[in-house]
Amino acid sequence: MEFTVQQVAHILKGEIKGDNQKKIRNLAKIQEGQEGDICFLSNLKYEHFLYTTAASVVIVNRDFEPKKEYLATLILVDDAYTAFSILLDEYAKIVNFSKSGIEQPSYLSPNAIYGEGLYLGAFAYIGNNVKMGENVKIYPHTYIGDNVSIGSNTILYAGVKIYAGCQIGSYCTIHAGAIVGSDGFGFAPQPDGSYKAIPQVGNVIIKDRVDIGANTTIDRAMMGSTILEEGVKLDNHIQIAHNVVVGKNTVIASHTGISGSTTIGENCVIAGQVGMVGHIHIASRTTIGAQTGITKAVEKEGTTMLGSPAMEHKDQLKIFVLMRKLPDLKARIEELEKKMKELR
Amino acid sequence: MEFTVQQVAHILKGEIKGDNQKKIRNLAKIQEGQEGDICFLSNLKYEHFLYTTAASVVIVNRDFEPKKEYLATLILVDDAYTAFSILLDEYAKIVNFSKSGIEQPSYLSPNAIYGEGLYLGAFAYIGNNVKMGENVKIYPHTYIGDNVSIGSNTILYAGVKIYAGCQIGSYCTIHAGAIVGSDGFGFAPQPDGSYKAIPQVGNVIIKDRVDIGANTTIDRAMMGSTILEEGVKLDNHIQIAHNVVVGKNTVIASHTGISGSTTIGENCVIAGQVGMVGHIHIASRTTIGAQTGITKAVEKEGTTMLGSPAMEHKDQLKIFVLMRKLPDLKARIEELEKKMKELR
Amino acid sequence: MEFTVQQVAHILKGEIKGDNQKKIRNLAKIQEGQEGDICFLSNLKYEHFLYTTAASVVIVNRDFEPKKEYLATLILVDDAYTAFSILLDEYAKIVNFSKSGIEQPSYLSPNAIYGEGLYLGAFAYIGNNVKMGENVKIYPHTYIGDNVSIGSNTILYAGVKIYAGCQIGSYCTIHAGAIVGSDGFGFAPQPDGSYKAIPQVGNVIIKDRVDIGANTTIDRAMMGSTILEEGVKLDNHIQIAHNVVVGKNTVIASHTGISGSTTIGENCVIAGQVGMVGHIHIASRTTIGAQTGITKAVEKEGTTMLGSPAMEHKDQLKIFVLMRKLPDLKARIEELEKKMKELR
Repeated sequence: MEFTVQQVAHILKGEIKGDNQKKIRNLAKIQEGQEGDICFLSNLKYEHFLYTTAASVVIVNRDFEPKKEYLATLILVDDAYTAFSILLDEYAKIVNFSKSGIEQPSYLSPNAIYGEGLYLGAFAYIGNNVKMGENVKIYPHTYIGDNVSIGSNTILYAGVKIYAGCQIGSYCTIHAGAIVGSDGFGFAPQPDGSYKAIPQVGNVIIKDRVDIGANTTIDRAMMGSTILEEGVKLDNHIQIAHNVVVGKNTVIASHTGISGSTTIGENCVIAGQVGMVGHIHIASRTTIGAQTGITKAVEKEGTTMLGSPAMEHKDQLKIFVLMRKLPDLKARIEELEKKMKELR
Repeated sequence: MEFTVQQVAHILKGEIKGDNQKKIRNLAKIQEGQEGDICFLSNLKYEHFLYTTAASVVIVNRDFEPKKEYLATLILVDDAYTAFSILLDEYAKIVNFSKSGIEQPSYLSPNAIYGEGLYLGAFAYIGNNVKMGENVKIYPHTYIGDNVSIGSNTILYAGVKIYAGCQIGSYCTIHAGAIVGSDGFGFAPQPDGSYKAIPQVGNVIIKDRVDIGANTTIDRAMMGSTILEEGVKLDNHIQIAHNVVVGKNTVIASHTGISGSTTIGENCVIAGQVGMVGHIHIASRTTIGAQTGITKAVEKEGTTMLGSPAMEHKDQLKIFVLMRKLPDLKARIEELEKKMKELR
Repeated sequence: MEFTVQQVAHILKGEIKGDNQKKIRNLAKIQEGQEGDICFLSNLKYEHFLYTTAASVVIVNRDFEPKKEYLATLILVDDAYTAFSILLDEYAKIVNFSKSGIEQPSYLSPNAIYGEGLYLGAFAYIGNNVKMGENVKIYPHTYIGDNVSIGSNTILYAGVKIYAGCQIGSYCTIHAGAIVGSDGFGFAPQPDGSYKAIPQVGNVIIKDRVDIGANTTIDRAMMGSTILEEGVKLDNHIQIAHNVVVGKNTVIASHTGISGSTTIGENCVIAGQVGMVGHIHIASRTTIGAQTGITKAVEKEGTTMLGSPAMEHKDQLKIFVLMRKLPDLKARIEELEKKMKELR
């Protein structure tokens, strides 16, 4: 991506002061700005960086009065901080949606349906009866199995694999290496000690505005659907087992694993490396600390859980403090024993 | 996949009652049945769903007498539950093994050998001297390095990567994104503080009827082989380090990591997010709870381990209970101290 | 790979005793040697294996005198152990760097630049303005986004994905399924309970001699760069979040997750399944035990941390011991209570 100062000033309705031929390739903090970068200066605590930065362009408030020489081109706006936020959003949108067209070689089943603005990277694979909305961006090496549907404005980065029969909503972002629809982990023990796979004939349904991190896996349901409701945000390396339902706007950090048939409410915040047993329900607005092991249902909304095995956060914190005091408690018991002996 | 009622009735030796032109695309629970689904009704607790379900077909016991109107076509069999189980197995087999032929473009080394029934998805890569048995299904974007062998009736889903020289048995299922044969993590510290990679020149051997979950990784041995014995079942995101041996019919849940050169016995059941140090042996029939940290060998067969660091399950449970009682224990010590003071 | 005894003897400046037509395909321990293997015998404790091994070739010290019949061809060298180490290194180098040329079909942007010795596997994707040094090995299904640079002698195994704008150094090894440059996990809560993605417009910089394990993920910075300094070694399934900096020669084992903006010093050793909160600094030469949860900065160099939540290793070990003694401590409290009652 490369932009001119004029393009950016136009987006921000700003006024250019300095060389208006400069090219912008990246956004940066003013203390890290290098050639080709655009930065902003809002808090005057950072003003001295303006006079030393190698950044090509700096967005400043319209009323800002420089006190020394500087090399950057300025863009003057009403509110530099807000302008930079807008620019970040615009830049991300342009970068992420810049690709379009069908690169060759790629594999597009003749009966797949797609809307305007499709990007199909080289070596992408689109199976039979796949339906894709408008402005779908499919990066190279992505695999879309038969009968999958994908809503509009959804991006699948390189190497995403969607098994047959799964449904992906609109405005979703799925990062590289994520797997949607692999078999649930279900095996029936046999008399000879071996295991027989229980057929997993359901699918995965991902609603709108869901983000899925790199290398995260979401298993298909045994029957029915594993579901990520609207607005769910998953980090990298997460495991969502078969028949799990994750409620609307719930956020989960990396390496967390949710066992089969567990359902999670809305607006929960789940930290990294959390584990959860299967077949339980987690109430809405539950917060779960990192490395917590959830062994039973969380029934009350708004609960905060911590520890392995988990208990309520404030109780667990007390236990953590007392664990650190165990040497002291032991010494006090010994002292009591000594005194007791003296008494008798 | 699409089946007719007749096809299914034929498989189940059942009798059709109703519209025999209906199409079946999926298997579902009767309470979730939608158009195109086939369900079953065995437990009469669920009978009322028959009269409201949108499912196209319902399998019922031959002696079942409906009490109200219903829309579904029925298939009458001796035992609806058993019939549905058979159908699940058949359906899974048909779905999983339905693909055959060589899609283009794919890369098949001229000296690779393969049997009848091969499916080679587009963009699959088969290296030199690869040997594949009959009925092998290789989904798109799968990479099979040089000199790999794959037994009959094995399925490799999209994007599986098998490094050169590894061996995969028959009737195995390897899910998308799984990596077999990456270098073991071995580095020799150098005098300047840097590390030199220890060459990893061994391979991975996967025996028959092994299932491997999505994005699981199995590192090649430093020398010799990392081995998954017959019937091993691995969930997603598992790490099997170099020179590990996992015994027959051992089952491991997601996010568990086994460090280098550890050997695990037969018929163990290992839960999720378990960690194990290297160079130890775990006896057969060991059960390990979720998030457990195994720091030394488990010598007695049939042991159950829990906690981090791990101890025997029943001892650990006592400790967990007492940890929760720490505030009480502290209060009792304080009470004793008070009384002691009064006494003296 | 296949070598003759002469080729190997030449590398080792050794003398052949026996059939000099034998072919060598692999390196093995003498107790596991099979046809086509080369082994070594240095410690005479293992001498008896020489008389039974099926290995084709055994490297021995020049002064070694066999006491029985054997079938292997011998290579006589000054120091068998050192010779075998040299052979391991040579073998690994030859195997890893043996591929060259551009396989078809692959996708190489016309304005990508590359040096001598490139291997570009089939179905590899090289975007616009990519720069690759000499002797770069890109295995099949690897994706290199636009504007990525890759130093000389770097190997990217099958299915690695490098997002646009990231930089990879020289002499790096990145294993299959690793993802470099996926979006950092940053979301701003909205008044309606939903989350808005914070644009992640930075990149990832990987310095020289960095090794990255299979399916490990390294997120791009929000702004600026996520950085792996020279000589960093990462195992499989690791999560490096946005704006993290990992110091020179730091080694991290599998399933460990480092949260956003945390910086780690040089020469740290971090075990598996460790979690770290964001926005902290870990001093150089810190050692962290498996499954540890780091909740705050480690300020003193050379510290060893353990437990979740973490404390210093020697303190944590005391706590672990006392936790196991909780039943005893409780019994002693009860005994004291009993005695106290008797006294009053």
